[in-house]
Amino acid sequence: MVSSILNITGKRSIDIMIQLSPLILLPIITYLFQSVMTLKVDEEYNRPQFHLTPEKGWMNDPNGLWYDRKDKIWHAYYQHLPNQTTHGPVINWGHSTSKDLMKWDVHDDALFPDNKTGHGIFSGAVVIDRNNTSGFFNDSLDPEHRIVALYTLNTPTSETQELAYSLDGGYSFIKYDKNPVIDVDTPQQRDPKVLWHEETQKWVMLVAKTQEYKVEFWSSSNLKEWELISNFTGGVLGFQYECPGLFKLPIENAKEDGPDSKWVLILAINPGSPIGGSFNQYFIGDFDGKTFTPDDHATRIQDFGKDYYAFQAFDNTEPEDGAIGIAWASNWQYANLVPTKKWRHSQSLARKHTLRYVDVNPETNQLALVQTPVFETKETKADPSLKSWDVINEYDLEDTVLTSETLVGSDFNSERNSSGVLDFNLTFTVAPNATYGLNFGINIDSQIVEGTKETIQVVFDAQQTTWFIDRTTQHNFQRKIPYFQERLSLYHQFASSDAEKGNTYHVYGIVDRNILELYFNNGEITSTNTFFFSQNKIPSSISIATDTDEEIFTLDSLVIRELGLK
Amino acid sequence: MVSSILNITGKRSIDIMIQLSPLILLPIITYLFQSVMTLKVDEEYNRPQFHLTPEKGWMNDPNGLWYDRKDKIWHAYYQHLPNQTTHGPVINWGHSTSKDLMKWDVHDDALFPDNKTGHGIFSGAVVIDRNNTSGFFNDSLDPEHRIVALYTLNTPTSETQELAYSLDGGYSFIKYDKNPVIDVDTPQQRDPKVLWHEETQKWVMLVAKTQEYKVEFWSSSNLKEWELISNFTGGVLGFQYECPGLFKLPIENAKEDGPDSKWVLILAINPGSPIGGSFNQYFIGDFDGKTFTPDDHATRIQDFGKDYYAFQAFDNTEPEDGAIGIAWASNWQYANLVPTKKWRHSQSLARKHTLRYVDVNPETNQLALVQTPVFETKETKADPSLKSWDVINEYDLEDTVLTSETLVGSDFNSERNSSGVLDFNLTFTVAPNATYGLNFGINIDSQIVEGTKETIQVVFDAQQTTWFIDRTTQHNFQRKIPYFQERLSLYHQFASSDAEKGNTYHVYGIVDRNILELYFNNGEITSTNTFFFSQNKIPSSISIATDTDEEIFTLDSLVIRELGLK
Repeated sequence: MVSSILNITGKRSIDIMIQLSPLILLPIITYLFQSVMTLKVDEEYNRPQFHLTPEKGWMNDPNGLWYDRKDKIWHAYYQHLPNQTTHGPVINWGHSTSKDLMKWDVHDDALFPDNKTGHGIFSGAVVIDRNNTSGFFNDSLDPEHRIVALYTLNTPTSETQELAYSLDGGYSFIKYDKNPVIDVDTPQQRDPKVLWHEETQKWVMLVAKTQEYKVEFWSSSNLKEWELISNFTGGVLGFQYECPGLFKLPIENAKEDGPDSKWVLILAINPGSPIGGSFNQYFIGDFDGKTFTPDDHATRIQDFGKDYYAFQAFDNTEPEDGAIGIAWASNWQYANLVPTKKWRHSQSLARKHTLRYVDVNPETNQLALVQTPVFETKETKADPSLKSWDVINEYDLEDTVLTSETLVGSDFNSERNSSGVLDFNLTFTVAPNATYGLNFGINIDSQIVEGTKETIQVVFDAQQTTWFIDRTTQHNFQRKIPYFQERLSLYHQFASSDAEKGNTYHVYGIVDRNILELYFNNGEITSTNTFFFSQNKIPSSISIATDTDEEIFTLDSLVIRELGLK
Repeated sequence: MVSSILNITGKRSIDIMIQLSPLILLPIITYLFQSVMTLKVDEEYNRPQFHLTPEKGWMNDPNGLWYDRKDKIWHAYYQHLPNQTTHGPVINWGHSTSKDLMKWDVHDDALFPDNKTGHGIFSGAVVIDRNNTSGFFNDSLDPEHRIVALYTLNTPTSETQELAYSLDGGYSFIKYDKNPVIDVDTPQQRDPKVLWHEETQKWVMLVAKTQEYKVEFWSSSNLKEWELISNFTGGVLGFQYECPGLFKLPIENAKEDGPDSKWVLILAINPGSPIGGSFNQYFIGDFDGKTFTPDDHATRIQDFGKDYYAFQAFDNTEPEDGAIGIAWASNWQYANLVPTKKWRHSQSLARKHTLRYVDVNPETNQLALVQTPVFETKETKADPSLKSWDVINEYDLEDTVLTSETLVGSDFNSERNSSGVLDFNLTFTVAPNATYGLNFGINIDSQIVEGTKETIQVVFDAQQTTWFIDRTTQHNFQRKIPYFQERLSLYHQFASSDAEKGNTYHVYGIVDRNILELYFNNGEITSTNTFFFSQNKIPSSISIATDTDEEIFTLDSLVIRELGLK
């Protein structure tokens, strides 16, 4: 029953490929890996390595994301309270930069409110004003460093849109002396995101008229004077809209008689997600510089997980690369309560976004947003010295039939501490006519601490062609907070089908200390969820098992890696 | 701190109104009610009393719902397999009737497939062909009994729409000899729902072209010849559409310059709900006899629970009453696995549907579907002898400030067996500036069996103005099946607000053995969920408690009742 071909690549790996007497899935998991780790009691134990986190304090929405083409640096700002672990309205723009979108260097906060009661710099955007339309810059400043931030000034009674500009490459900002640039006398208009619309030679701002369920579109020639040109309402409404976004995406597999690209409008709601709390959705359509026209009345879900909110795309990337962006990896239902203190919350990995025609069921092939984690940028490919990370261990397996007697996987952690960052890339085929209850499970195990370990699971149900994610741990926070839904599921159509061989599925997952990002069928569906192992445990191994004795599941290919910062 | 006014009404009640030292919510719950019940081990222990269940075997979608104005009887058909406990394609229309929509009498199955391999009668509708447009009837048959059923014939390779008619008031059907009436050569077109469109004097059929995400609209003068006239796509798409519906609803609080009524389109998807599995959504708009035009691109959720699917409205009710309808109270993710055998699944209570302008947040007042359980019909009001049920016990309380030292509620079960059916009607006010973690919980307790009891909870989080529902029990089924999400939540705007007094909320709940239906703010939001206590326990008492010592929560009014069939 054991593998026919077993390819070992990578630097060093400890392979697990054993035969067990037929047992059900759970007992297998509990006793498999017997490596006992020395526990480093460290309040940062579960701080992600490859996900942007604040050096200190609270973080929420990503803000002002932009790419510096001159210095080849990715800039991320974010809602930041360095001296608080819970959210509050008197908030700054924190600042981090990265050369490869994996390792993030933290800088001093870049944008602060004036010292007035209850004033805070809320979410917003950065654009490169290369042609100095704003007049903030003189010729001595490189056009690539003509940086304008647009943000919401939140006060106890108002929300207005303001400008600030930077003369030092985005490390500090000078506020425009005629702010605000938009004041419609409301406490509920926020989160401007701005783009340059080439065809009409205008700046376009999307801003949420949050409690009126409007994405407002404003137009400007100079970033200072704005005119309201249209608005859009759609999707699940919830309590309020936040953080809209709009970008034109290339279609990976464009049809001969169809468009090469379409526009995608992104929209966050909180609270009021069907799954509880915070939620991001998207709409595919056209944009003529004035009005966004969706192709249909459908509501599409950006990420099926509980921790993916307030997505924003980087400004100033190359259009053909699709949009690259990140989202806040938490949920307002429990964001103020999660068991981290020194840092609170991470962003998602930077993801590349494109569109692809996808078989969503046997009769319909339609456009879907496709999300891929950015491990290699154009720049790191051209200059590998920019790359901050490496593969520490790798385990490969091909063409292996899996039954309940077989368990495959890799414990990279027997001889030393794990980095706590592992990923897996799995293609598998389910034989035709799989019956109910035939499950195929990916187990993400913690270290063993005081003789026990914890496991979170990603399980495929062959009869329902549905994934369920069980992030249950023994951490008291997860036990106590009912909003922290531990068991989630999503339907997942096969990637390809063969009458004889069966249906083939693909899933890529990366676990980074306390966050698990899952990308199904090369990014057609994603689910992003945080979790908290008890006793400061970190992830250390990944195994795959099934509960069937029949030869139903074939692992076409499996790669498990341990990753680490250089 | 104990109540100022305590009204006892109803026949007999045992009141609980005690003072406890400050304790957290959970310990309070576990040890409060000390009445030990004699356990009747009965496989029907958790069979709902007021919810339609099959006498025997499997049930899913409600079908062919109609009201008999002549005999004053409500007819419900449903997907039924009397000799199976799991779903299969060779399926009948089961049949039950009720005089008051509360007690259901079971009849023989009414519509069967021909004895051909794999043929099944799938979901469909009944209409009253009063004017004999179909020609099936002669003058001797009362116009109110000219009953035509339209259903999907499912075979291993096709789905077609067929007709059958009844000459005996709906107890048996004769199939039309020229079936099918719609055959578009597809295995994926089903669930016809038909209405008479008065303005255009035409029959209109909605039918799901399931995997093309189309609600097709067909038109006919005689129910036999049909023409495709339009289609609609909207909402969360999931894997496929099922069970569309359309009705015109009165607006409860119509505006002087606005419409008195609007059309509502109902749409089920399975799988692919954001919450997992099955899901119902709705759209508000206009219908001109040909095309449904939604007012906006929004997707609205019909019920936030995990067990509300395939809703259908009764044909032949009075238009001014709004639509009365029921939904299947399960989820395809676990419907074949729930721990009932003799009967498997119930329908929801019959609900009346209207539209109401609702404050969904501080800035927006908009139309929402409003759902109210039908305890009294027009007919039972006119003739109380038609009413099948009674209040066994009632507990009333008014104007009581609740703190952690106070627990209110009612155990109707100290001296005898509970009926297992209890409801509560609660209005409460939260003082301004309630802070995080101040919870207000409604506990639904089981009997005590072998010294232990179980509790499911409906908890209001005052800071997030969010309800969470925790249906966790000790039943092995719930522990094992990860799709059976035990912890759910939904955002809920206050019903009214007063700067000094605070925000006022309303919730009505009915628990009927194994199902809990919740109606927030007089039906503006609902959540329907099943649950399974272990050891055959049934619900026996309801209590309300809070975890705060501050005087934050005022119970404006509370009525708890025990209900029973006469």
